[in-house]
Amino acid sequence: MRFFSDNAAPVHPAVLAAIMQADVVDTAYDGDQWSARLHSAFSALFETPVSVLWVSTGTAANCLALAALCPPYAAVLCHADAHVETDEGGAPEFFTHGAKLMTIAGEGAKITPDALGRRLRAIRDDVHQVQPRALTITNATEYGRVYTPDEVAALGALCRAHGLRFHMDGARFANAVAHLGCHPADLTWRAGVEALSFGFVKNGGMMAEALLFFDTTLADETRRRRKRAGHLLSKGRYLAAQLLAMLDDDLWLHNARSANAAAQVIGRAAGGRCLHPVEANEVFIALSPAEAAELRQQGFDFYDWGEGAARLVTSWHHDVTAVQPLADAIAAL
Amino acid sequence: MRFFSDNAAPVHPAVLAAIMQADVVDTAYDGDQWSARLHSAFSALFETPVSVLWVSTGTAANCLALAALCPPYAAVLCHADAHVETDEGGAPEFFTHGAKLMTIAGEGAKITPDALGRRLRAIRDDVHQVQPRALTITNATEYGRVYTPDEVAALGALCRAHGLRFHMDGARFANAVAHLGCHPADLTWRAGVEALSFGFVKNGGMMAEALLFFDTTLADETRRRRKRAGHLLSKGRYLAAQLLAMLDDDLWLHNARSANAAAQVIGRAAGGRCLHPVEANEVFIALSPAEAAELRQQGFDFYDWGEGAARLVTSWHHDVTAVQPLADAIAAL
Amino acid sequence: MRFFSDNAAPVHPAVLAAIMQADVVDTAYDGDQWSARLHSAFSALFETPVSVLWVSTGTAANCLALAALCPPYAAVLCHADAHVETDEGGAPEFFTHGAKLMTIAGEGAKITPDALGRRLRAIRDDVHQVQPRALTITNATEYGRVYTPDEVAALGALCRAHGLRFHMDGARFANAVAHLGCHPADLTWRAGVEALSFGFVKNGGMMAEALLFFDTTLADETRRRRKRAGHLLSKGRYLAAQLLAMLDDDLWLHNARSANAAAQVIGRAAGGRCLHPVEANEVFIALSPAEAAELRQQGFDFYDWGEGAARLVTSWHHDVTAVQPLADAIAAL
Amino acid sequence: MRFFSDNAAPVHPAVLAAIMQADVVDTAYDGDQWSARLHSAFSALFETPVSVLWVSTGTAANCLALAALCPPYAAVLCHADAHVETDEGGAPEFFTHGAKLMTIAGEGAKITPDALGRRLRAIRDDVHQVQPRALTITNATEYGRVYTPDEVAALGALCRAHGLRFHMDGARFANAVAHLGCHPADLTWRAGVEALSFGFVKNGGMMAEALLFFDTTLADETRRRRKRAGHLLSKGRYLAAQLLAMLDDDLWLHNARSANAAAQVIGRAAGGRCLHPVEANEVFIALSPAEAAELRQQGFDFYDWGEGAARLVTSWHHDVTAVQPLADAIAAL
Repeated sequence: MRFFSDNAAPVHPAVLAAIMQADVVDTAYDGDQWSARLHSAFSALFETPVSVLWVSTGTAANCLALAALCPPYAAVLCHADAHVETDEGGAPEFFTHGAKLMTIAGEGAKITPDALGRRLRAIRDDVHQVQPRALTITNATEYGRVYTPDEVAALGALCRAHGLRFHMDGARFANAVAHLGCHPADLTWRAGVEALSFGFVKNGGMMAEALLFFDTTLADETRRRRKRAGHLLSKGRYLAAQLLAMLDDDLWLHNARSANAAAQVIGRAAGGRCLHPVEANEVFIALSPAEAAELRQQGFDFYDWGEGAARLVTSWHHDVTAVQPLADAIAAL
Repeated sequence: MRFFSDNAAPVHPAVLAAIMQADVVDTAYDGDQWSARLHSAFSALFETPVSVLWVSTGTAANCLALAALCPPYAAVLCHADAHVETDEGGAPEFFTHGAKLMTIAGEGAKITPDALGRRLRAIRDDVHQVQPRALTITNATEYGRVYTPDEVAALGALCRAHGLRFHMDGARFANAVAHLGCHPADLTWRAGVEALSFGFVKNGGMMAEALLFFDTTLADETRRRRKRAGHLLSKGRYLAAQLLAMLDDDLWLHNARSANAAAQVIGRAAGGRCLHPVEANEVFIALSPAEAAELRQQGFDFYDWGEGAARLVTSWHHDVTAVQPLADAIAAL
Repeated sequence: MRFFSDNAAPVHPAVLAAIMQADVVDTAYDGDQWSARLHSAFSALFETPVSVLWVSTGTAANCLALAALCPPYAAVLCHADAHVETDEGGAPEFFTHGAKLMTIAGEGAKITPDALGRRLRAIRDDVHQVQPRALTITNATEYGRVYTPDEVAALGALCRAHGLRFHMDGARFANAVAHLGCHPADLTWRAGVEALSFGFVKNGGMMAEALLFFDTTLADETRRRRKRAGHLLSKGRYLAAQLLAMLDDDLWLHNARSANAAAQVIGRAAGGRCLHPVEANEVFIALSPAEAAELRQQGFDFYDWGEGAARLVTSWHHDVTAVQPLADAIAAL
Repeated sequence: MRFFSDNAAPVHPAVLAAIMQADVVDTAYDGDQWSARLHSAFSALFETPVSVLWVSTGTAANCLALAALCPPYAAVLCHADAHVETDEGGAPEFFTHGAKLMTIAGEGAKITPDALGRRLRAIRDDVHQVQPRALTITNATEYGRVYTPDEVAALGALCRAHGLRFHMDGARFANAVAHLGCHPADLTWRAGVEALSFGFVKNGGMMAEALLFFDTTLADETRRRRKRAGHLLSKGRYLAAQLLAMLDDDLWLHNARSANAAAQVIGRAAGGRCLHPVEANEVFIALSPAEAAELRQQGFDFYDWGEGAARLVTSWHHDVTAVQPLADAIAAL
């Protein structure tokens, strides 16, 4: 059983069905009927007018957002363990034309207002030092931690005070919302977030991610940047249909709840081994090489996470029964 | 009936079936079993070792190739009507970090060795003028014309003589091969082509295109560039499976033959109206506004192509019977 | 005697003297007393508040201006023979992060409103085609022709109507003003120009050029871009002092008048050989290889300009007596 | 008396004299007789064939070097306090098209082989993490510390072992050599350095810095990059002449010795206040706000360096007598 990544999971049947239904003759690029419905569908979900662009990867969504929010000669503030800093192969620098990522430390890959304030104060305001123009946070974080609406709002207030634009990498936004039980709006634009990468691939989609602008004035320029980055698909309806299927009947939320619940089962079994509180669909545990080998011998696959630690990721197609064998195996170590 | 673009066509059933078969748990990115088979599948087809990267758009394939072949401070030679020059929203400049496109005129969007030679001689070799480092041609061209293996080889020889790398935009490569009845190798590496964008989306695929390097040393760097451009999909098996399905039993060639045959039916009906010889799956015809209106009233959709002209594009799901009504309508004008 | 380029000329004694006077301890970068005086000095000359940045080359001035006026995903319209297109080694693409130069033909390297209008109408307004955002013209042009205030204003009006920003490459702005006898303001901001590269190096300076923003809001960002391009000199006072010396007692205008007058002497001697009206300090003449050889044997150096033609450039240190030998030699051919 | 920066110092008389001597008609750009002599002059000094490019700023020299040594999709390793990281306004990212700076901590702004090795081991070799391709060190460092030939060679060996190119930012290279009393070759190419930014502006020059390639194959491409960055001056002889003057009779070394000796006087007076050993021409001392105010009241200017600390920089025009008043004032605190 694989717990490498939520990317290893198959596609949810409803998404596959939607792709089949979109298999008709229609206008190319994003001129089709599915793409046209994205704005209203997401606006309804977020209770505010949003502009939406579909793209095929989270990296593209994140980096198109950063390019819209930060000029080439400025900097984006992010956590030192942020996906944009450590796992996107330099894509932020590519899309922004060389903007600098300035990193901030913090437990569980979370940035606190205090840490942000300290980082800002350390930057001289002259032409010799690159000046920050944007903040990006990941929710749920790379360590499976979740920012609450209040925590996001505190960062949002700091951003406004310092002239920073505010982006949220929501590759696992669904898991964050599922954990909090809050309204998606409370976690985003009501807390000052201006652009959201809303991830669906890790949550049952095939290759469609949504880039949402709550500041809708940024969308037109970004449509040009999307084309220029080769991210406007000629048969875009096959992407748009995936997103609409995920929104239908809150499939995104149900899938995330399954993944989160599965993670809780593992987390509870792991008990004191847990290196971070389990809030979303990732469980980080202390695990000796011998223990890791034992689990693998029993057929469980996962990534080592540095020395003596492992990362276990659940996904939409795990439920509490599916992960019970892993939970039992961990408990029995 | 729509003749706007081969992008308007649906996906071939065999491709959809392949996607369904790939819907299993497997390794993320391009670590899956389908992606692993790409190199041998394309190497077999081209009778030489090739390195293949899948991407989701032809623009990405073209521009990753150009970035591998041309440094930022140099230029890519292309036809003035080339897709990279007129229809990719500045993507070549983005991926190459600002390399210059230098355009060459020529009938039917084809570049002749003479025209290439003249363009090269007009460039002063000093640091003030940008120096060309690569040539890209489109086969079949943007006007549905086809370069023969000999024509490609003549350009290839000029490239070698002048230190130019050589790329072929094969968004409609299948239609060119179908027209010529030649071996794919004769039209590419045997004629000096070092990188090929082999298009499948216009030919029955969903969103998978292949970037082939005959100079396989360019692939490693390009894998990094692909990730950096957000073009490494996390569930890449759904793309790789599409390409393999297109190669199975030469589906790519059968589809292209259908589209070409349909274009021939229209071209023959259009007769003297044809603005270019019909060689692939595009038909450009003289058409007055009144005539265009009449065709549209009969339910045929297509793009105007400047004043008094129209472009009609056939695709894999047109066959000679399907387009007969349009052929009859044109003949009856 | 050298007529290769106005860059071959030495530095005007007053400029050298100013450099010597600036040879004191002062604040680094542009925090010195000379740099501080630039804004008021140029504002006085142009009768409007301007923001000025000194840089060491005309290429830097032009390309910093274009970067301020045109986003990476858009295009700059320019003449096909413009210096930015043919002689800056790809610097516009570098500074703008890959914006496209779109060229316009026109006699004497001049762009007419008609030609500009036609070019604009040929661009489809969709994401597939790069959209123009700025126009740059050179005054005096690369062929020594001069735009009048009315001609500039007509282009300026078109720019406003089409949402284009407007830049003037004034490497030989002084020669244009000297020819027209107009006020510098009439040729620039009063005619809609928003940024001017005001050249001094070809006109007696050593390595100081001025980049002027009439839209002063663009200056702050450009100061960052200047630093980022390595164009903020640590001992900037040695540049600022050059510019101030050129403005003192209208030295820039006197120098340009000398160069223009010298060109007139040559132009009159050349008579019907002239390929363009002589308006500034460049003379283009029909000259057979034999005639060129003869002139060179007599000690006159110059560039061939294509086949059967030559370019003769005068500078501040030529006056009407200094060029008489060349004029006589041409007349005697 | 100003101890802000060695950039505040005036230009050495011999450099001014050289500029005057270059004030003749000659070929533009770098086609003049002075530029032509650079290669042999520097090759003689370094006892190996070098290719030299003059530029007007250290930032340009550093960043052209990094662009030659590191592709856009890779990373440059540097110290966290390196000038390229903290004080060049994002120029490394601009010139390299978005390569990432990866920082390493270390006392006195020095990188040890151990620290470099640890940093390298922390990078996963996959396409998701940016891979390092070059190392840059500053000698003398930003804290006035000096790498010995052995220390450089140890880093050079690590670079070779890990496929890293090796650059030295020598803004104060002269001060390092003056401190060590070694041969310039021992500190550079004999220790594995492939490109050196050899600074002259802080050491008595006006605006000329040398970029030296010991791997001379990198020079041709860099000449194109220099032009493309607007750093090829049209009257380049005024820069080349400065460099030649600095090499004549080892003026560079004499000037650096003066500055270093002056720093020693201050350092000895400061005694236990010194925060770093004084090796080059910078003295960092503990200084309370009250003490700083007292020194300033006595007419000494300098930068605060964080809380309770100050930076005092000497230059070529300070000698041991000139700085005695400051030394006395510090001793008297």
